[in-house]
This record gives sequence, C-alpha cells and structure tokens, in this order.
Amino acid sequence: MSGQRKHIFTAGPAVLPVEVLETLSESVRDYKGLGQSVLELSHRSEAFDEIHDKAEQGLRRLLSLKAEDQVLFLQGGATTQFSMVPMNYLRPNHSADYVLTGTWSVKALAEAKRVGQARIAASSKEQGFCSLPSNFDWDSSASYVHYTSNNTIFGTQWAAAPVTERPLVCDASSDIFSRPLDCQQHALVYAGAQKNAGPSGVTIVIIRADFFEQLSAEARDDLGIMFNYRTHAAKQSRYNTPPTFAIYAVSLVAEWLEQLGGLEAMAARNQAKAKKLYEAIDSLEAFEGVAATDARSLMNVTFRLRDDSQQARFLEQAEQQGLVGLKGHRSVGGLRASLYNALPPESVDTLVAFMKDFAQNS
Amino acid sequence: MSGQRKHIFTAGPAVLPVEVLETLSESVRDYKGLGQSVLELSHRSEAFDEIHDKAEQGLRRLLSLKAEDQVLFLQGGATTQFSMVPMNYLRPNHSADYVLTGTWSVKALAEAKRVGQARIAASSKEQGFCSLPSNFDWDSSASYVHYTSNNTIFGTQWAAAPVTERPLVCDASSDIFSRPLDCQQHALVYAGAQKNAGPSGVTIVIIRADFFEQLSAEARDDLGIMFNYRTHAAKQSRYNTPPTFAIYAVSLVAEWLEQLGGLEAMAARNQAKAKKLYEAIDSLEAFEGVAATDARSLMNVTFRLRDDSQQARFLEQAEQQGLVGLKGHRSVGGLRASLYNALPPESVDTLVAFMKDFAQNS
Repeated sequence: MSGQRKHIFTAGPAVLPVEVLETLSESVRDYKGLGQSVLELSHRSEAFDEIHDKAEQGLRRLLSLKAEDQVLFLQGGATTQFSMVPMNYLRPNHSADYVLTGTWSVKALAEAKRVGQARIAASSKEQGFCSLPSNFDWDSSASYVHYTSNNTIFGTQWAAAPVTERPLVCDASSDIFSRPLDCQQHALVYAGAQKNAGPSGVTIVIIRADFFEQLSAEARDDLGIMFNYRTHAAKQSRYNTPPTFAIYAVSLVAEWLEQLGGLEAMAARNQAKAKKLYEAIDSLEAFEGVAATDARSLMNVTFRLRDDSQQARFLEQAEQQGLVGLKGHRSVGGLRASLYNALPPESVDTLVAFMKDFAQNS
Repeated sequence: MSGQRKHIFTAGPAVLPVEVLETLSESVRDYKGLGQSVLELSHRSEAFDEIHDKAEQGLRRLLSLKAEDQVLFLQGGATTQFSMVPMNYLRPNHSADYVLTGTWSVKALAEAKRVGQARIAASSKEQGFCSLPSNFDWDSSASYVHYTSNNTIFGTQWAAAPVTERPLVCDASSDIFSRPLDCQQHALVYAGAQKNAGPSGVTIVIIRADFFEQLSAEARDDLGIMFNYRTHAAKQSRYNTPPTFAIYAVSLVAEWLEQLGGLEAMAARNQAKAKKLYEAIDSLEAFEGVAATDARSLMNVTFRLRDDSQQARFLEQAEQQGLVGLKGHRSVGGLRASLYNALPPESVDTLVAFMKDFAQNS
C-alpha cells in the first residue's frame, strides 16, 4: 500500500484493514496458487467450501455462538431484512414492536407495516433522533421487538440493548464486530457487511436456535423461496449462487479481528479512538457535538462547526490532508467521522490534530 | 498472471478476462491512485458515480438500448427475479405463461405460482429437457411470457426467442452478452452476472420503457420496497448500498467486450469455440452429446463418455492438464464444458486435443 493512503472516515462502504486488502488483491489475481482468481471459483467447489466455512466459523467464535444457532450470508442489504424479518416472523393477529431511533428504524417499521401489524414501542423522534428513548410501551404479545443498535446518520448508539421479554431483533449493520454482542440475548441479528465486516454485497443474519425453530414449526409456503430464512439455512446460504467475493472478504476480516484479540480488544481500541475525538469536539470552542452526550456513538461521531460558514473550508482543507468522508449525512448536515474497526488510531490522531489547527486559525 | 493459469470451464462463477482481473486486483489495492481501495468508495461518491455510469452506459451501447429503457443493478441473483417478475407484473385475474426448458424455468414457474396464476405454455420436460419445445399454447391475455434463453444444466439454448404477442420476459443469466440480444423484442431481461458479465453478487435487470411505464401506472404499495422495480429505477439502483465491487467488475467486462468488437464479434468467437468442441464430440467414438443437436447451447456443452466407467479417469487427467470444471451438473451427470465469453479459444483447443488423446488411449 502506498504512503499516500487516505484516512477514510466514510460511513460505508468503509475503510478496510490494509492486510485484508492486500490478500484480496492477490486473490483476485490468483487464489492460493490455484491458477484461478477467487472470483472464478465455483460456489460448489472445495475451495469455496473452505472460504465459506472460515467466514462462518470465524463469526461463530467472535460472537460465541452455539452450534445450533444459524449463520446466514444473504444479499440485498439490511433494507431487504426490513422486509424479511416480518415476512418470516410477524404472526397473523399479532403485532411487532419497533423502537425508533432514526432513519433506519423508521424504514424498518414502514416495511413491517406492509407485511402486517407493527407499532412504535418507543421513539426519540421528538428529540430529532439525537438521543435514545428511555420510555417503553411494550406489547406483551409482540411477535418480536426490533431496534437499531447504532444510528449511522444521527450518531447515537445503545450502550446496552433495550430490555424486553419478547424476542429481540437487532439491526447491527453499523456496529457489528465493534464490541462484544450477546447473541443469546438476541433472537435475530442482521447486518450489512459494508461498515465493519467487509465490502458491500453481503448481509450477515444470525438466528438463535430456538427462534429459528419457530420457523421450522410453520410451513410458510406462501413466502417467495429467496425470502424464507429456511431456504438459506437448509443450503448453508448456497441455495443459489452467493456473493462469493464478499463472503471471502468477511472471512478475512473475521481472521483479522481474531488476530487483534477479538471483540473485547476491538471495543477497547474503538473506545480509545472515540474518546480522543469527542474530547477534541468538547474542548475546542469551534466545534460542537450533534448527538446527546449520553447517547453518543463510538462508530459515527456527528459534530459541526459553530460557525456553519466555515464548513466548506474545513472539508476542503481536510481533504488536502488526506482526511476523506467527513461530510455529514445530507439529512443532518454538519460533519461526521465514522470510526469503524479498520480505521487506524493514527487516522483519529491526524483528524484531531487537524481540528486543533483549524480551530486555532479560524 | 502466472503461466500456470488454468483452463476454466466451470458453469459459474466462471472464468473472467485476464485483463479485467488485473485491473480489479490493482483497484482493490488502490483505485486510480486515490489512496483508497475500490471497496472503500462510498456509493454516494463521485468516483462510484463514474463506475456506475460506465457500467450502465457500456451495457446500453452493447445492447443498443433506448434512453428510456431501464437498466438496474440488483442483488439476490436470478432466483430473486423469479419472484420479483410476478410480484411486479402478474396482474390480478390474469395469468402468466411459462416456457419450461429445464431446472431454472421450472423454478421460475414455481415462484410465479406463489404470487398468483401461472401456467405452462410449452415444455420439453418429456424429452428430459434435452431439446426445446416446438408447440406453444399461448394465453392471449397472459400478463407476460417467461422463458430461459440458455439452459446451463442440460446444455440447450434458443437460437431465437419464442414468438409471442404478449410481453416477453427472458432469464438470460447464462448467455447475456454472448451474442446480440434484441431488447426491443423483450419487455424485460434479467441475468445474474456470474457467467458472462462479472463475478457473482449482482443481477442485471433491463426493462423496456413501455413495460416499465406499466408499473408507473400502478401504485403497488403492497410490495416490499426492495422488491419493487420502481424503487431501484427511481434511485438509479442506489436506494440502498449496492454491490459496488461487482458493478465495477461489470463496467470492466462491458469495456472489454466493446474493445473486442461488441456482441457480433463475441458471437462469432463463441460460435467458433463451440463448433470445435461439438465437432470433437461428434467425431470421436468415445464421446456423445447430451442435448439434441438442433438445441445445442454455445455456452454450456453437455456430453458424456460412452463408457461411463472412464469418467473419473477423464476428469482426473483433465485436471492434471489444467482443465478444470468439466464435471456435469449433479442432476444430469456426465461432462459439461462451459464456454463463456472470457474463455480463451486456446482453452477449447487444449480441451479438444486432450479429448483426442484420451480417446486414442482408452
């Protein structure tokens, strides 16, 4: 990798570990000396069986899954899961509970409502989604409770999952693998890979054994075959041709995470990175945070210049220093620094130094 | 690329052009000197806008599309299209006509039946799908007619599309870009990319302008947002995060095809490759073809050894010569050589020479 590599703060598709990129690059040319690119491997070949197995087993170890828990690699992103979760789990004459913390959970609720009954159990909409809700109105017979663990756009993150007696479903797209995740507390976890787990093009779905058993008890022949979790579980995610390259990348990211010490170690690294940046935002007069202090995300740090007119200059100068992807989401404005796993601590140091410099000279 | 590169006859994911693999490999390391991998580009970035545009425009030129025709890059493979086509186009109180020529069209029909009414307009099932049907029983009010242009498994291919007055829908997964395709004759064409268009993980969907207009006239708020073609058309396939790398690969494959002279030139090259192999099968006593002569595919050549007991030895010796992926699909048995666009003519020469050698020494 050249010395000119950028500091990549984009919200996703996002920065990947340099070591992983090197291996991917080599494997696209020639996979392990086989005389074929990894892109040319049949999804029914032994070589791909190994790749799939490595991705799945790495993920199982990282998340301490039980042998009977399902791990699926699907397509269509988290947005497709907004539909698949209710299509598979919203029972007739029952409703599902949704906790609204921003754009993604609002979209997830809208898709559930196309499938059946769904209601808002809690929401921070009145706070402009800059905080997390603290009051919950649970439906004790809800088919499931859905929440979004980290809000990429507004920069909020649950420190701990909401507590409910109903099966808990989590969209963990933007913080999976960034810290330990209790997959026994959760009935189902899904995540688009393109932030912490790999490139875009593959979605990880984890279904706890007992929750998966609920599906097996029902026929659901009305569901399109690709929208039925049972289809993919029965064929180890290879009912049809899977996104082989993206799964390969996930296998390498999982290996990289294990080599760095797993999710506890990654959480410590991520806390340290976020702490430095939030300290800079709070201590420098020129900046202010967007999300409520007690709801701040370790993954997506939202902030802004108190003098809005300086933003264009800030982004331009940042770009000149190799700091890219700092523009806030169009629906929030301001600035956003995504500090995913693969972002090196040095990138945060460079950003903080630039912010201090900018503050001094503005 | 090392001198040890294999001759890759797999059915998909399949062989890719060496030049494309070189560019992909370099871009995974660093995209155009940007200091970022192509995998790390935001799907909202100018750099990715360019990639998407290049893929779409390349495809439009290759297929001579009109400006108003829709080109979509989706996820989930052709199998997801088995559902999306009827979900979007099967009208209430109408039926759709399906032409059955093998495993894929049978699966497509099954998914249509989950959505609404669908019937068999023609079938070669009684011929073991080794030929193409010649009798058609059209429903003059069918919402559409669906057929599969090339059957990967049985090795048959339509020389010309079935003639019908109803909107014609084609699953062209295994022969798109292998020859000119009349996209004005077709109302909708879809294709998983992993045979002739790129790696797995992206599905191309082309909808003729007037057929797309039919959708716009209806609300269809009952459809999940990801299953509605209008969602993707309205956002140029970026309603949610697209499979950026696979789309990039398609852009390079389209460029490669144009450099080689486009689809007429590719068709001539493919005819020459297939002719050589079929001539070997027909002239060597040790082999016999599987598909009926008048239905033979230029993409997937199915054949077998008259002495079945020799097959294991054939495959083993072929592998030793660098000829991989020659085992037939498990549902047909025997041998299969997939001769997709990117398979160099020299690979066919090597296979034919090996077959002659094997026939002489068996």
